[in-house]
Amino acid sequence: MPEPRRVTRRDVARLAGVSDAVVSYTLNGGAPVAAATAERVRAAIAELGYQPNAAARALRSGSSRTIALLAPVGGRRIFANPFFAELASAVEDAARARGLDLLLTTSTPDEAALHARMRDLAARQVDGVLLLAGAPVDRAPIDALGVPWLLLNSMDRADGADGIGVDLAAGAATATAHLAALGRRRIAFLGDTGADAQGRQEPRRRGWEDACRAAGLEPGPAIEAAYSREGGRASGRLLTGLAERPDAVVAASDLIAIGLLRALRDAGLRVPEDVAVVGFDGTWEGEYSAPPLTSLRQPLEAMAEAALDRLAGGAAGPALLPGELVVRASSGAG
Amino acid sequence: MPEPRRVTRRDVARLAGVSDAVVSYTLNGGAPVAAATAERVRAAIAELGYQPNAAARALRSGSSRTIALLAPVGGRRIFANPFFAELASAVEDAARARGLDLLLTTSTPDEAALHARMRDLAARQVDGVLLLAGAPVDRAPIDALGVPWLLLNSMDRADGADGIGVDLAAGAATATAHLAALGRRRIAFLGDTGADAQGRQEPRRRGWEDACRAAGLEPGPAIEAAYSREGGRASGRLLTGLAERPDAVVAASDLIAIGLLRALRDAGLRVPEDVAVVGFDGTWEGEYSAPPLTSLRQPLEAMAEAALDRLAGGAAGPALLPGELVVRASSGAG
Repeated sequence: MPEPRRVTRRDVARLAGVSDAVVSYTLNGGAPVAAATAERVRAAIAELGYQPNAAARALRSGSSRTIALLAPVGGRRIFANPFFAELASAVEDAARARGLDLLLTTSTPDEAALHARMRDLAARQVDGVLLLAGAPVDRAPIDALGVPWLLLNSMDRADGADGIGVDLAAGAATATAHLAALGRRRIAFLGDTGADAQGRQEPRRRGWEDACRAAGLEPGPAIEAAYSREGGRASGRLLTGLAERPDAVVAASDLIAIGLLRALRDAGLRVPEDVAVVGFDGTWEGEYSAPPLTSLRQPLEAMAEAALDRLAGGAAGPALLPGELVVRASSGAG
Repeated sequence: MPEPRRVTRRDVARLAGVSDAVVSYTLNGGAPVAAATAERVRAAIAELGYQPNAAARALRSGSSRTIALLAPVGGRRIFANPFFAELASAVEDAARARGLDLLLTTSTPDEAALHARMRDLAARQVDGVLLLAGAPVDRAPIDALGVPWLLLNSMDRADGADGIGVDLAAGAATATAHLAALGRRRIAFLGDTGADAQGRQEPRRRGWEDACRAAGLEPGPAIEAAYSREGGRASGRLLTGLAERPDAVVAASDLIAIGLLRALRDAGLRVPEDVAVVGFDGTWEGEYSAPPLTSLRQPLEAMAEAALDRLAGGAAGPALLPGELVVRASSGAG
């Protein structure tokens, strides 16, 4: 095969017996080209191995028309959680509508690897980076790269002050109030139950506890659960073994709720009769679980649009979007 | 902010008082740099707004170190089917191990849009394109672009002869034989039941029918189902209304099977006692369905590795990989 980078549009035009502009029209549209002419141009392109060059264009413009989604998930699969797949789909939709492609990439969760990936992305001249970080990040070295970036679906305990995310505390409070209003009296929480270095708790855990107290209820147990089906199942087993069993659970993700449903089924407990369950995320999987899952839906389209707006230099400052409670059978309403 | 593209590595080196090489080491590794020196380099980068330039590198090398995954899904979300999310995760894993990034992109399913997207990707100098095509494609205009490409998870009725995929017919036959061996006598099929222009049927449908006959069984009804949970549920409703109800179903995807489980539940039928179910794909969702789903697992890692090997100029010719039956409760074995 000829060396593609040595062949220019002019070479193609000469071989096809057309003008440079006709080569461009054939490749990129912009003006009609007769079918036979286009065929000649394509044959010349194939013969010469010509590649129209986005790198040259990026060099001139400083833009690669690309947004990167960086997930520091380490050895785990980026889409082990379908919520991230649905979020990435929403970002791809929004990016495509703006003429941007989406670069999907991962790193290990440690800061050094994350910063190295950010440098790679800056070197690619991406137009922005959406960072799906599960832990606080050291911002200074990233800011120094001069690439627009922000946290998406921020798990920051400061309530997403430096990114685009959903108001997790308010969402969990809504879910908890829903269960309390249905007469549940011992509402447990499954999720991240630890405190960070500043003593702050995960927002969903805070929202659940506050809503329990606001309803005049002693919060049921908060049981640590990894954000996975397996995590929900393991924590669900603990829950079913409690002498004073909760009559409802707020799960910090749909995956945790799906695993919990399995543990409840295995223990012969009925949902919602014995235990009512509310998930968090509003993923598609919860529509078809047994029973279908009441869940706090995250507004993925709005999050994707807001994130791309901000990367393009739009509104600054925190952007905490409201979630929406989707009521199905698992909570026992209706 | 200064114009990033006017600043060179040399400018950074001068301001930081180091050699060009030290700037490169600080950014890209390759040799140790003292912490204080690296700090000076980063400060200079921040002050000047320097962006190390991948576009210039791509221009020199003709490579962007990028693999594209193109899904012509139209208005639907690229990851509406979690199988594609899991497959994309596997490709991202394999690409990262080779130092390649993954560009995720969609087009509408029509040939013109698909070809336009392929031209864009060629212009980006991607090192290869994996096309998740659900329909046959006109290869000549794509080949003319000179970019390595192939079909991944090919739905081609010629059994993936021009891509990397799983032996769908053999997989469906394995699933069907499993049900027949468990004593099921009226095995239905839910999936794509139509024939193409050459009169060929979808491979899974063929595999199911052949295996029924090989087991001495009259094939149960083949019911058309869209590849979605909703599709499986709608076709499942038809199935539960049949006077001569099947005692087993081979579903062409896990999503179809998940929807079918819902329809069976809604009709008060027990799985596997009344109807045994086998899915196809082996997605994570099926591990936690009620009951957990027996399914023909596609070897995603092997598919991703084989696809990247071939894009890099490795083995040519068809690559039809074997699936593996994962037995869980829904088929009633054990």
